Amino acid sequence: MKKRNVLYAQSGGVTAVINATAAGVIEAARESKEIGKIYAAKNGILGALKEEIIDTNLESAKEISKLKHTPGGAFGSCRYKLKDLKENKSEYQRLLDIFVAHNIGYFFYNGGGDSQDTANKIANFTKEMGFPVQCIGIPKTVDNDIPFTDNCPGFGSVAKYIAISTKEAGLDVLSMSETSTKVFILEVMGRHAGWIAASSGLAKQNEGDPPHIILFPEITFNKSKMLSKVRSSVKKDGYCVIVVSEGVRDRKGNFLADAGTTDAFGHKQLGGVAPQIASIINSSLGYKYHWAVSDYLQRSARHIASQTDLDHAYAVGQAAIKFVLNGENAVMPIIKRGKTKKYSWSIDKVALSRVANKEKKMPRSYISKDGFSITKSCRDYLNPLVQGEAYPPYKNGMPVTASLKNKLVKKKLKNY
Amino acid sequence: MKKRNVLYAQSGGVTAVINATAAGVIEAARESKEIGKIYAAKNGILGALKEEIIDTNLESAKEISKLKHTPGGAFGSCRYKLKDLKENKSEYQRLLDIFVAHNIGYFFYNGGGDSQDTANKIANFTKEMGFPVQCIGIPKTVDNDIPFTDNCPGFGSVAKYIAISTKEAGLDVLSMSETSTKVFILEVMGRHAGWIAASSGLAKQNEGDPPHIILFPEITFNKSKMLSKVRSSVKKDGYCVIVVSEGVRDRKGNFLADAGTTDAFGHKQLGGVAPQIASIINSSLGYKYHWAVSDYLQRSARHIASQTDLDHAYAVGQAAIKFVLNGENAVMPIIKRGKTKKYSWSIDKVALSRVANKEKKMPRSYISKDGFSITKSCRDYLNPLVQGEAYPPYKNGMPVTASLKNKLVKKKLKNY
Repeated sequence: MKKRNVLYAQSGGVTAVINATAAGVIEAARESKEIGKIYAAKNGILGALKEEIIDTNLESAKEISKLKHTPGGAFGSCRYKLKDLKENKSEYQRLLDIFVAHNIGYFFYNGGGDSQDTANKIANFTKEMGFPVQCIGIPKTVDNDIPFTDNCPGFGSVAKYIAISTKEAGLDVLSMSETSTKVFILEVMGRHAGWIAASSGLAKQNEGDPPHIILFPEITFNKSKMLSKVRSSVKKDGYCVIVVSEGVRDRKGNFLADAGTTDAFGHKQLGGVAPQIASIINSSLGYKYHWAVSDYLQRSARHIASQTDLDHAYAVGQAAIKFVLNGENAVMPIIKRGKTKKYSWSIDKVALSRVANKEKKMPRSYISKDGFSITKSCRDYLNPLVQGEAYPPYKNGMPVTASLKNKLVKKKLKNY
Repeated sequence: MKKRNVLYAQSGGVTAVINATAAGVIEAARESKEIGKIYAAKNGILGALKEEIIDTNLESAKEISKLKHTPGGAFGSCRYKLKDLKENKSEYQRLLDIFVAHNIGYFFYNGGGDSQDTANKIANFTKEMGFPVQCIGIPKTVDNDIPFTDNCPGFGSVAKYIAISTKEAGLDVLSMSETSTKVFILEVMGRHAGWIAASSGLAKQNEGDPPHIILFPEITFNKSKMLSKVRSSVKKDGYCVIVVSEGVRDRKGNFLADAGTTDAFGHKQLGGVAPQIASIINSSLGYKYHWAVSDYLQRSARHIASQTDLDHAYAVGQAAIKFVLNGENAVMPIIKRGKTKKYSWSIDKVALSRVANKEKKMPRSYISKDGFSITKSCRDYLNPLVQGEAYPPYKNGMPVTASLKNKLVKKKLKNY
């Protein structure tokens, strides 16, 4: 029988290390004699639907290796969720046609919870239709919200970046606080879960260190409680550093960031909970403030990626190939933490049917009683994930990244 | 005669490498047999006025050495400008009293243009009053706006951070642009000069690379011209990355960031030109956008400081001590660029009277004709300043920084 081909696709928001997972898949697949061509879908599942399929075999080993230090999604990603099989069978049928036309035997979907669900459905559908494709979901998300895996590749690097940025900016504010800025607010990602906000807590190495306040999406925003904590921090330490998750909500469940700001042009302005918090503090307490919104900077900061995170990201890619060669289907590689005191990890697996559409929330026990900081158990969980500095190589002062040809294979089907 | 003591003070906004200058001063002073105690003013000139004087001799050599990789201002800084001698002689008299009481023979003022002016006035006043103190201004500013010196210590590290962040976030946006974010806006510092915004231009290594648009404070904001450029970038490259200086102004000379935004609580909201630009683009072109404001993160990002910048910062500190030992007074060490093609630099000096209250603007020839990018001459100027990665040491996943005792010497004068 003719060797069957691989199709790898990236999905959803990218990370600093998702390309390391791609490198893991491609390098492992290249080593196997049982695997044919290694394709990647352009812009994720959309490329699969449109038959925009990149032939990664045209890329040199050197360039593929550079993916390990290239942020973003090298083949393009997309925000597109396949509809339910009952609602839109034609999409699944189209994917099947693509798989048949290009002799795809192995499909790897590198994304968050939604993507694991999709991968599972594709596995079932192709089997039912008599052209079984081995589907492996590969975890990726800065939000760290996929269940079963101890942590998600992509998260550790954001966590490291945010912890370091909080420490660095804190030192800046501290030195200016006598006559200038007393309050600094850093807005971080995490619409539904406070994992990223929590990671800023690693900056606090001694009593009085920043962050003085973390505002989690899990804790309902309480203006007067926050103001009182700001006041006491400024009184005690001379300044106050606040890390706020973009997902913080008020008592009615509305995002603070969506609170209907209007700019000078009369346009409704979206986003930016940091300036909201700054206004509240300034108008109530009068402190001079600064705020920062790190946005995409945090999830693309490959220049200070966590080595542990990078290792995880590469390992789940390699494991995905190992799984299909072992005949596995509809599973996801997960990172399993060892029970030893010294951090250790290994790769295990879970059935996609169990992962699909579940969210891993931050345990309440990871947040202090007053709701403004992390507990020791949270610190113990986070700490191993930010270990090691995986620096990219530099040329002429700038980080070196991969430049792929991303050449598409010839279409065999009609346009979709 | 009894050996005279050093007083070192930090002034204005801090940088990722101002503490390296402090280390340069202290380490060189410790090596000299002609210098007595080495003091630092707490929170800049305010500490000198209040007689809050830190005895740096109590710090170990190891801890002083750590200043080379500690961002912020380790002795505290302040925004406080001494009034003119005619207006407020009492402040100068007070400083003189402090200098006499603590036998200060050498005063080092580490700051921007204002500080050089102050240092010059103090030199003149102490001489007139018969207690001549050798005053050396030491350049420091992320804004790169001090004249005579080829560049200001502090700038190269911000430039490197912004160039890298622009490249990284650009790769992120590119990979998502098919179905999601098409426009990304990064707001950077630089109220009056576009040096920092310009440095983002180093991310553009090939045609089509980000940034697609730089908005300089030197170029009056033109909405329709910008929108047209955004549209053409999205059409051509699929996305558009904009780097905007906080100092961008409209035709009337008003800061866009001050355009009277009102938040949900009815408070006037200051700062944030990035969200303004985002609104303008979204309401005119409908593109999905994201924006980031790096604020203090950019000037405290010691984790990716430029080695060249760090070398400059340390060298001006060492030179300041050399100058006083050579009997110099009322001068500032400057960085002089060699005339060779390969970058070289040396330390020279300039009289403080010539530096005082002058601003170095970006030459118009550094900005492209259309006002949206940098020219080759600008790139040639900037490029050497971001060379080399001066990584701090890490412990347990976090950068190691100095922990000074900052113990104050006993007061000898009445409260001020």
